[in-house]
Amino acid sequence: MNTDPSQVQLTADGRLKHFLTTEGLSRELLTEILDTADSFISTQERAVKKVPLLRGKTVVNLFFENSTRTRSTFELAAKRLSADILNLDIARSATTKGETLMDTLWNLEAMYSDMFVVRHADSGAAHFIAEQVTPNVAIINAGDGRHAHPTQAMLDMLTIRRHKESVEGKVVAIVGDILHSRVARSQIYALNTLGAAEVRVIGPGTLLPRDIEALGCKAFYRMEDGLKDCDVVIMLRLQKERMQNALLPSEGEFFKLYGLTEQKLAIAKPDAIVMHPGPINRGVEIESAVADGMQSVILNQVSYGIAVRMAVMAMAMSGQQQERNEQTDGQEEA
Amino acid sequence: MNTDPSQVQLTADGRLKHFLTTEGLSRELLTEILDTADSFISTQERAVKKVPLLRGKTVVNLFFENSTRTRSTFELAAKRLSADILNLDIARSATTKGETLMDTLWNLEAMYSDMFVVRHADSGAAHFIAEQVTPNVAIINAGDGRHAHPTQAMLDMLTIRRHKESVEGKVVAIVGDILHSRVARSQIYALNTLGAAEVRVIGPGTLLPRDIEALGCKAFYRMEDGLKDCDVVIMLRLQKERMQNALLPSEGEFFKLYGLTEQKLAIAKPDAIVMHPGPINRGVEIESAVADGMQSVILNQVSYGIAVRMAVMAMAMSGQQQERNEQTDGQEEA
Amino acid sequence: MNTDPSQVQLTADGRLKHFLTTEGLSRELLTEILDTADSFISTQERAVKKVPLLRGKTVVNLFFENSTRTRSTFELAAKRLSADILNLDIARSATTKGETLMDTLWNLEAMYSDMFVVRHADSGAAHFIAEQVTPNVAIINAGDGRHAHPTQAMLDMLTIRRHKESVEGKVVAIVGDILHSRVARSQIYALNTLGAAEVRVIGPGTLLPRDIEALGCKAFYRMEDGLKDCDVVIMLRLQKERMQNALLPSEGEFFKLYGLTEQKLAIAKPDAIVMHPGPINRGVEIESAVADGMQSVILNQVSYGIAVRMAVMAMAMSGQQQERNEQTDGQEEA
Repeated sequence: MNTDPSQVQLTADGRLKHFLTTEGLSRELLTEILDTADSFISTQERAVKKVPLLRGKTVVNLFFENSTRTRSTFELAAKRLSADILNLDIARSATTKGETLMDTLWNLEAMYSDMFVVRHADSGAAHFIAEQVTPNVAIINAGDGRHAHPTQAMLDMLTIRRHKESVEGKVVAIVGDILHSRVARSQIYALNTLGAAEVRVIGPGTLLPRDIEALGCKAFYRMEDGLKDCDVVIMLRLQKERMQNALLPSEGEFFKLYGLTEQKLAIAKPDAIVMHPGPINRGVEIESAVADGMQSVILNQVSYGIAVRMAVMAMAMSGQQQERNEQTDGQEEA
Repeated sequence: MNTDPSQVQLTADGRLKHFLTTEGLSRELLTEILDTADSFISTQERAVKKVPLLRGKTVVNLFFENSTRTRSTFELAAKRLSADILNLDIARSATTKGETLMDTLWNLEAMYSDMFVVRHADSGAAHFIAEQVTPNVAIINAGDGRHAHPTQAMLDMLTIRRHKESVEGKVVAIVGDILHSRVARSQIYALNTLGAAEVRVIGPGTLLPRDIEALGCKAFYRMEDGLKDCDVVIMLRLQKERMQNALLPSEGEFFKLYGLTEQKLAIAKPDAIVMHPGPINRGVEIESAVADGMQSVILNQVSYGIAVRMAVMAMAMSGQQQERNEQTDGQEEA
Repeated sequence: MNTDPSQVQLTADGRLKHFLTTEGLSRELLTEILDTADSFISTQERAVKKVPLLRGKTVVNLFFENSTRTRSTFELAAKRLSADILNLDIARSATTKGETLMDTLWNLEAMYSDMFVVRHADSGAAHFIAEQVTPNVAIINAGDGRHAHPTQAMLDMLTIRRHKESVEGKVVAIVGDILHSRVARSQIYALNTLGAAEVRVIGPGTLLPRDIEALGCKAFYRMEDGLKDCDVVIMLRLQKERMQNALLPSEGEFFKLYGLTEQKLAIAKPDAIVMHPGPINRGVEIESAVADGMQSVILNQVSYGIAVRMAVMAMAMSGQQQERNEQTDGQEEA
């Protein structure tokens, strides 16, 4: 098994053909994603917010882990690219009648599917599928275990670029449960590649992985220290369902120490922006005055999220198509 | 909060931009809805029953209260207008993960949604959303508590107009559980605005609201009295799930007194039509001989229902678009 | 009630207008289905795998019995024909609120539906609907009780034709639980009509219907006898959910006697192909070495399945349209 996921997701000449992780992708490629997403924001502000780029393609939403919200954003992105969508709620249905996961995927591939949007509770699931199971179907990772959530990270990058001009040179703090967060991991890679001046993680010791600084960030245990001079404050969702007991005293205690209030936000730069991947727990990670305040760009993130998903879907499909054409040409010449 | 819902649903120059209630809408506007629906009936009788009016628009079916049937009619209406649809079964899914209703709606709005079709168990929910939460998204009320079900009322008006030439001058009886019926309320407003000669409600005292005659109708307790000289008999569905105990002796008793039989129907005019919003409880509100008889137009109502939904969706979207254009023009001039 | 289902599914001049069963259909018609499906395989190998044949038509997936997989193949087939689809999961939803099945169907017909894809646990359900309930809607049988599963049978015929040139002259064995299998029944009719040299069924006495040979096949109780000289081996899925107790000793025992292993497959012709309708129970009906081996065409069947469904949907819609046009012409002349 190829252990470098960045290679698995690229064609021989370095174009995107899957989107599994932000790790190892070049600054050029990340920037291409952001530029493409920018163009889809314009598309969506038109009266007819559709482009025919994926017309006649079949996208399958394969959600092994439920998330109506994330599924909806991919569904809308696919529809606005004119693709046909099949929603398979594998978490809930008895789809497989005892069939193995690989048989299910091979069957869907045999139905001439062009793309799988995969969400799975196991880290590495999307990578495994892309490399081992159905390499000719474009795989878009919509979140795998604690590993990665690359479309979320890229919509965050787009948000920073649109509201702070550029990621380059910015001081960015990520606050909360870093330990269980696939979002944080994907953000740290993307922020560093795009040239952030400093990436900080802030949280209680129990929720900061020991080796986190090896990813290229600085760990802080107190908001008072970590928020100083920040351009961007990214609050994470407290994943109650993922947390084991006794890592945290209580929600109230968490809010007191790490919840973003107007008072704590004042420690950051006066023009700092506040981000959150949603859905927000008001009064747990963030107080309403901040979530709904002038510095919040939380709803903008949602809008950019569709555009970013359209971008990676369009780019991966194009990479797959190119590779297929080359294989066909090769065969014809042979 | 603006307490006049008819104003909330109109643009400055009196065009529809939401569709929340039939109350307070002018005869001209109701007639425009019926005329537009008429044209969509022709559309659906063609081999290709689609028009591109809502191409590239996103319609979200937001059903806080389950109703597969009503959702299906809106879904088909939206598809025949070429819109993209997102079905969110909020009643069943854990969509929101503790998120507030307003956050859910703001998120959907941020995804560049153009229209929400809302069904909710609380009276006033659609109005509240249109006025307070997402005023730039066209809101179509698909039933809110005991308050209103305006698309049902308008398909009933279309049925009367197509089978009795006009609503004007007709004697119309509404029979059954008026107390819990949002349908009855919406019908009474529409019938009076469109010039019905007399609107009657027939039911047991326990199921007739005390102030019902203030809405412009006459209350009757016996079918023998109320059906006399009627042109139109509208049976309501016995909403078993909404009824508290002890309001009614039994289903059998109800049928004996208020169930529509051939014998009771003979009291109305010989050419009276029989209507029912469906799904029908055979042998409870209506006997099969009547439901399937010559005077029944119950299945025609279903057909017209799609056309009416297409009409209000197209009109509301056009009203929103116009208002948006005017705002943009205003900004450019300023 | 017309007891000849083959007549119910044809127009006056012998074209398909429903697709209920392979029984009684002519060799010409079955061949037309296969030829049409062939053309749709090419369609799906193109970059844009869509044709506008059913544009503006409404197809309703009416699954009274759950089957995510079969529903998905019909959904994809309909989308690739450019139809609008409504998925009604009647098995799970409280769609009908006490409404009768016939009322539900009449309502869907009144919504200008053009086609119902029906799956039902009762044998004869699709036929009953086509003849008695909604004869003007094209009915496609997606499996009814133990009776028929004609699209599965036709995709099997297409598989044989594409991998063995023709059905004509071939020796075909169907192995497993014949008693509970609607697939086997539909296959036997189609194989005989298309000129197979010999159709064999292989299974334990408890799972072979007594009168099975009357359908035109030979019964075998041992794989050693039945597989000899076979060109095609069709394994059936062991329908655990349909089996009563005590018909079989155990899964292990079944596999030992009737499970397809490389060793048993060697009894058939060396170039025999192996088929299975899926989902496969690895180690119950078939061992993985065979399922994934060179002679297996199981995933090809899945691909052809979409094409066959597109073919019968397009043909039935065309038959309905023609009949409607003739009725209209007749009325105009009268």
